[in-house]
Amino acid sequence: MTVESYTLKEAMIYSQRIAQLSKALWKAVEKDWQQWIKPFNLNINEHHILWIAYHLQGASISDVARFGVMHVSTAFNFSKKLEERGLLKFSKRDDDKRNTYVELTPKGAELVLRMYDHYLDTEHSILEGSLALKELYGRFPEFLDVMAIIRNIYGEDFIEIFERSFKNFKESIEEKDKDQVVIKNEILMNK
Amino acid sequence: MTVESYTLKEAMIYSQRIAQLSKALWKAVEKDWQQWIKPFNLNINEHHILWIAYHLQGASISDVARFGVMHVSTAFNFSKKLEERGLLKFSKRDDDKRNTYVELTPKGAELVLRMYDHYLDTEHSILEGSLALKELYGRFPEFLDVMAIIRNIYGEDFIEIFERSFKNFKESIEEKDKDQVVIKNEILMNK
Repeated sequence: MTVESYTLKEAMIYSQRIAQLSKALWKAVEKDWQQWIKPFNLNINEHHILWIAYHLQGASISDVARFGVMHVSTAFNFSKKLEERGLLKFSKRDDDKRNTYVELTPKGAELVLRMYDHYLDTEHSILEGSLALKELYGRFPEFLDVMAIIRNIYGEDFIEIFERSFKNFKESIEEKDKDQVVIKNEILMNK
Repeated sequence: MTVESYTLKEAMIYSQRIAQLSKALWKAVEKDWQQWIKPFNLNINEHHILWIAYHLQGASISDVARFGVMHVSTAFNFSKKLEERGLLKFSKRDDDKRNTYVELTPKGAELVLRMYDHYLDTEHSILEGSLALKELYGRFPEFLDVMAIIRNIYGEDFIEIFERSFKNFKESIEEKDKDQVVIKNEILMNK
């Protein structure tokens, strides 16, 4: 146990800085994400639900809500819409009668994978905005400070689910042999 | 000029990681921000407009929109509401007849400052979630990689305005002698 002290001034400046940075970052992410998924007639919550259900190989509605950072009612209502479109199905598990689970139908799984074939059809400002860092560090940034804060706020299991879903995501696109495709980008340095 | 290459796989994994991290971060920021400003009957856009107009010592509607990362119509409509409440006033500048400017009324300025007296009335999960990093590094994290990406997406002048508003913010709270107040937090290490 340790005692940490900081001034109210420091705290307010820090928290307003992260608030405004995080708003600007999220608005750019949101725009990229919306443009990519719009041709598939999905909104961000719907795509996020499909993504989670796919990469966790089935998930309870409360897992979807928690990991997708949305209300349980939002997770449930959008899951219903996805079910109506034949992309998702609801189920109960024998070992957990209380929770409702969702998993993708073959049509839903096919859609999730097919969307990656169209990843480059739209602009990804975040990706372009990160290329100079990739150039500098030899890899894309990992945002370890942001990860640490999210771990403290949402809990260790949030990060575990996060990493598990990305492990599965990585494997699913490896199967598609996507890594054969090399993109070249010309970056005008000192622009 | 340099040629940068990366695989589509790398790009997709990176951009989905930052998308989901940024969503989780923003949702936590949004909740903290809303809880703090709710007693003052403001929403995030309204508070952001007041903040920008205050710390830039007057701003055009298009500056507010750009720097607040909101549509021009959103900036205009919420500014109108703030004007109706007597917190903000519209004006034209002699050297720039085309743009509409907003600046705070004395009542608006008083509100912006008074809100800081109530900063600790509500929970700030982001701040609490950052204390372990503060402990480790001796200072709050600066998110330089996020800043670099935002600079690339929104432009150098976005960052300049950002830093200018924070400089003014810092001075305005120094005047209030807020840094006399020291907060002590007990952190249970290895929890």
